[in-house]
Amino acid sequence: MPGLHVLPVGGIGEIRPGAALGPLILDACRDQDTPLLDGDCLVVTQKIVSKAEGRLVPLDHADFAARAELIATETVRVLRRREELLITETRHGFVCANAGVDLSNVDEGYAALLPVDSDRSAHRIRNSIQAAAGVAVGVVVSDTFGRAWRHGLTDVAIGVAGIAAVVDLRGGTDDRGQELRVTEVAVADEIASAAELVMGKASGIPVAIVRGLDAEWFGEGSYRDLIRPADQDLFR
Amino acid sequence: MPGLHVLPVGGIGEIRPGAALGPLILDACRDQDTPLLDGDCLVVTQKIVSKAEGRLVPLDHADFAARAELIATETVRVLRRREELLITETRHGFVCANAGVDLSNVDEGYAALLPVDSDRSAHRIRNSIQAAAGVAVGVVVSDTFGRAWRHGLTDVAIGVAGIAAVVDLRGGTDDRGQELRVTEVAVADEIASAAELVMGKASGIPVAIVRGLDAEWFGEGSYRDLIRPADQDLFR
Repeated sequence: MPGLHVLPVGGIGEIRPGAALGPLILDACRDQDTPLLDGDCLVVTQKIVSKAEGRLVPLDHADFAARAELIATETVRVLRRREELLITETRHGFVCANAGVDLSNVDEGYAALLPVDSDRSAHRIRNSIQAAAGVAVGVVVSDTFGRAWRHGLTDVAIGVAGIAAVVDLRGGTDDRGQELRVTEVAVADEIASAAELVMGKASGIPVAIVRGLDAEWFGEGSYRDLIRPADQDLFR
Repeated sequence: MPGLHVLPVGGIGEIRPGAALGPLILDACRDQDTPLLDGDCLVVTQKIVSKAEGRLVPLDHADFAARAELIATETVRVLRRREELLITETRHGFVCANAGVDLSNVDEGYAALLPVDSDRSAHRIRNSIQAAAGVAVGVVVSDTFGRAWRHGLTDVAIGVAGIAAVVDLRGGTDDRGQELRVTEVAVADEIASAAELVMGKASGIPVAIVRGLDAEWFGEGSYRDLIRPADQDLFR
């Protein structure tokens, strides 16, 4: 059947600091009879990447002052504040709640921070899979962010390797032959969102395979391509 | 294979005002040997919905004053303005560029406006498919919007029928047994984004089938669920 397949990958188990995610994901894919293929794109949730990279820090979840301090260390700028909620810009340039400091899906007494360089995290997974199994996959590291104006959270890309983050269709023509104006599509964000539909929040599915993407999208990419430059951002 | 399938639906042809989208989509799905099944979710781009509903208005694309006037009629509030770009709130409550007035993929001399009530548009498609073929599908009407802070466009839902727009997981527990705080997931937006990955901008694919979604998501929904109330929106 043509089109796209989005396959959940379970059975990866609890991730400890130092865990080698690439081999773990490879094994999990094989164990469930969905071995990785050239041209697949893996979506890996930030939570297991942060855990593998030791980005867990001790935090008493009830200690709001300590939490605020931790958020401050991850923040370069506060855009808005309302009660306990901070909308912040992280060192990467992401605008999100509480600088991505996350208390869910981690042990009581800990908080998970965003990866320091989530492109590097994605490249590490991609390279180890290539080395171990000889398959060339794209990798998207995903996280769950809120948006301005729209209610509800969606998953977006916070790191990519081997796949474009934004596909630039400027200068093409639409199906009536007219020139397209603005059609830079954030495919990495759309890939992260598609994967979230098979992950859920509490289902123990931290990885998905997205199979059947346009071959032309595979190549160089960076989360930086997904950050609107501050001087072009009317809402920063 | 488990997981999600996202199937492009082509061969729908040019849509004229008054066209019955439901039967046209049904036929196109059958013609390409992907007949609709109970529990499928159809994603239908705004462009063909607007065309079928006669939401095309004459506009000289080079006449910027006329274009500004047209945008003004579709706008309840201007949030930001930079050169020719207006970030506006539409009558529906959507925040998007130029009130959704679109010059691409329409005949020279015309502009496409957003559907007046895109939930109603979605219901009309859903009901006519149910009546003609006896299958119960969800319908998402999608459009391509920009975002604050993030570069690149993504497809989002501007109308839904028979499927939730936002799935509320508040009060559940994560996979470590801890209570989840905020996990209202905008599944309709994620479904629209997943569909966009097989549509592209210039590919003549105005419809996609998303197959394999969680059965619990099917039910009542509205685009209104996707609009962050102004008094809770820190960026409006």
